[in-house]
This record gives sequence, structure tokens and C-alpha cells, in this order.
Amino acid sequence: MKKSFTPNLHVVLTHYPVMNKNGDTIASAITNLDLHDIARAAKTYGVKSFYVVTPLLDQKKLVHKIVTHWATGAGAQYNPMRCEALELIKINDSLDEVRDDIANEGFGYPKTVVTSAKKNSRNIYFNKFRKLLKGDSAYLLIFGTAWGLSEEIIQKADYLLEPIEGKTGYNHLSVRSVVAIILDRLIGR
Amino acid sequence: MKKSFTPNLHVVLTHYPVMNKNGDTIASAITNLDLHDIARAAKTYGVKSFYVVTPLLDQKKLVHKIVTHWATGAGAQYNPMRCEALELIKINDSLDEVRDDIANEGFGYPKTVVTSAKKNSRNIYFNKFRKLLKGDSAYLLIFGTAWGLSEEIIQKADYLLEPIEGKTGYNHLSVRSVVAIILDRLIGR
Repeated sequence: MKKSFTPNLHVVLTHYPVMNKNGDTIASAITNLDLHDIARAAKTYGVKSFYVVTPLLDQKKLVHKIVTHWATGAGAQYNPMRCEALELIKINDSLDEVRDDIANEGFGYPKTVVTSAKKNSRNIYFNKFRKLLKGDSAYLLIFGTAWGLSEEIIQKADYLLEPIEGKTGYNHLSVRSVVAIILDRLIGR
Repeated sequence: MKKSFTPNLHVVLTHYPVMNKNGDTIASAITNLDLHDIARAAKTYGVKSFYVVTPLLDQKKLVHKIVTHWATGAGAQYNPMRCEALELIKINDSLDEVRDDIANEGFGYPKTVVTSAKKNSRNIYFNKFRKLLKGDSAYLLIFGTAWGLSEEIIQKADYLLEPIEGKTGYNHLSVRSVVAIILDRLIGR
């Protein structure tokens, strides 16, 4: 039996800065099922934390309300399994704050790895990232919402993970599906 | 370069018969994002059709309304990529009707493969199913909603696919995530 490993991996879903359809930088709105699906996938694959980044106060309140409902409110009684997943969620204003928080929690400052539906000459392959995860460093896997992460975030990242390619050239998966597939490729089996 | 293959694979999301929390057989409600996410994943991996099964008239109307909005309505103009995915959707009353439809469309009567979060002594492994998909037969991959497919559907299926196991024993992924991961394991890379 292979030695099982639980990587020092953290996930963030970014609502700012992201792009809209026209390529402008915007803050996107929270989608309830993003929180549920990504928390459940993160819990399944042993991800250490699931950060939700938005600088908008009303959106932060909304995330807090959803998490509280399922973690300690009526939802926790109705479905305790949902609680176990949603309590992985932390809310922050920016990716810089997330990096600081990971360091403050004792995981060390993370290397950042961005995901994108587009190929890039700097892409690293899944195999390479799987090997990196076997080391001791912390890694922060960054997902975007709306039409994707803004260019400045991509430029600043330590690594750019290769896109998921299916069979057809169609590359418009939901971020919920992308997180599930990437965690399975990195950690599953 | 390996020869690319597009399997004769069809997917169905079942809203009846499924189980509720107490194990009773029910008809579950349609979830909008199930349709979007599964259609987008099906399109990405070259799945031939995405069936939605519900015997409830108001729920069938709801699916029809969502598909029409994105396939020919205002949504099609706003986001043509979404249209390409959602037009894979077909609505049927029962799994038997789905099997007939696949045969009528010229794909042949499909072998049925159910998915479940629970292990079963009849489980086949992903590798085995990948090999089966290289043959000429049609396969119908059956997903449940709510607390899972009812026992009669599982008993009648030709094959039971092994569950997805992460790293932690937690096995409560959303059906949207499960479809994405299973299609990636079967057809991706």
C-alpha cells in the first residue's frame, strides 16, 4: 500500500480582482453553491483551508451568514456532514491577507499557483505539481470567478497550472467542476 | 500521439426514483446549477447526450424553460458557449424512456452503469469501465440526486461504478462535482 500523504494545500476562491466579459476588472458576486461544492471537495481531499476572497462588506456578510447557518444554525442539525465541510471556510479581503493568514496559522508562507482555462507558456503540468506537493512547503491554489482572474494575479503567481482539457476543445467548465477535477488529479487515488 | 476516442457515452441525472434523508423513495426538485454544470462537463468531455429524468410536469416545464432561455432566448445572445452545452439536455419521464430514446437515436440500447457514494461488492473499477468504453456498445451513466438513487435502480443496473474516494473518509461531494470527476477519470487525459 502506498504511503498516504496529506499535502500542505490551501484553496482560495477569488471574487476580486477578476474580469468581466469585456476584460474589465470587477468584484464578482458570491454564488451560494460555489461555497458548498468547493467546501465539500476540499473536505474530501484533505485540503487545509478554503478561503473566500471579497473586499465587499455585504458579500462578506452573506458568506458569513451561509457558513453560520450550516455550521451552527438549523442547517447543522439538518445535515451535520455539510457543517464539517463549510467550517473549512475563511473570509478575507485580499489574496495578500490570505497568504498572511496561512503563515500566521503556522503553515508557512505559501507558494501561489493560479488556475486558468487558457494555456500559458509558463504552465506547469499536473505531474509536476503533484511532486511539489510532496515537499514541506505550503501551496495556495487560486481559483477565479466570473471571466477569470485578472492578469496582475496571474503575472505575480509563482506557478501557473495547466488548464483542464477534455476531448472537444470546449473549455467552459464551472469553477465548481474545475476545483473538483483539479483536487482529484492532484490528490485523488 | 494516442488515438483519441469519443465513447458512446450518455449521462442521466435522475430525480425519480431517489431517496430522501430517511430512505423513502421520492421525486426530488430540479437544481438550476446541476443542469448548467453537468451540461458544461458533458460538452467538455464529448458525452453524446445529457438526460434529465423527472416525471413531474412542473419540473419538466422548469427544465424546458431554463434550456430555452440559454439555447434560443436572451441567454444564447449573452453567452453562446452556454447554449452549446445546454442544448445537450433532453427531458424524460423515466430511465426506461431514456434507454428507448438512446436506441431510437441510433446509438443502440445502452448498458446501464450506476454511481453511488457507497461501496458495493458488485463495484467495477474505473480502469475496467475505461476499457469497456473503448468498445462499440452504448453506455448510460446514471447519477442520482437528493440522498441517492433508489435501491431498485441500483439492483437492475448492468454495472455499479466504484465510489470516488478522497483522502479523508468524507464522501459527501455534490452530484455536480461527482459528474465532473467521473468524466475526467473516464475520458480526460
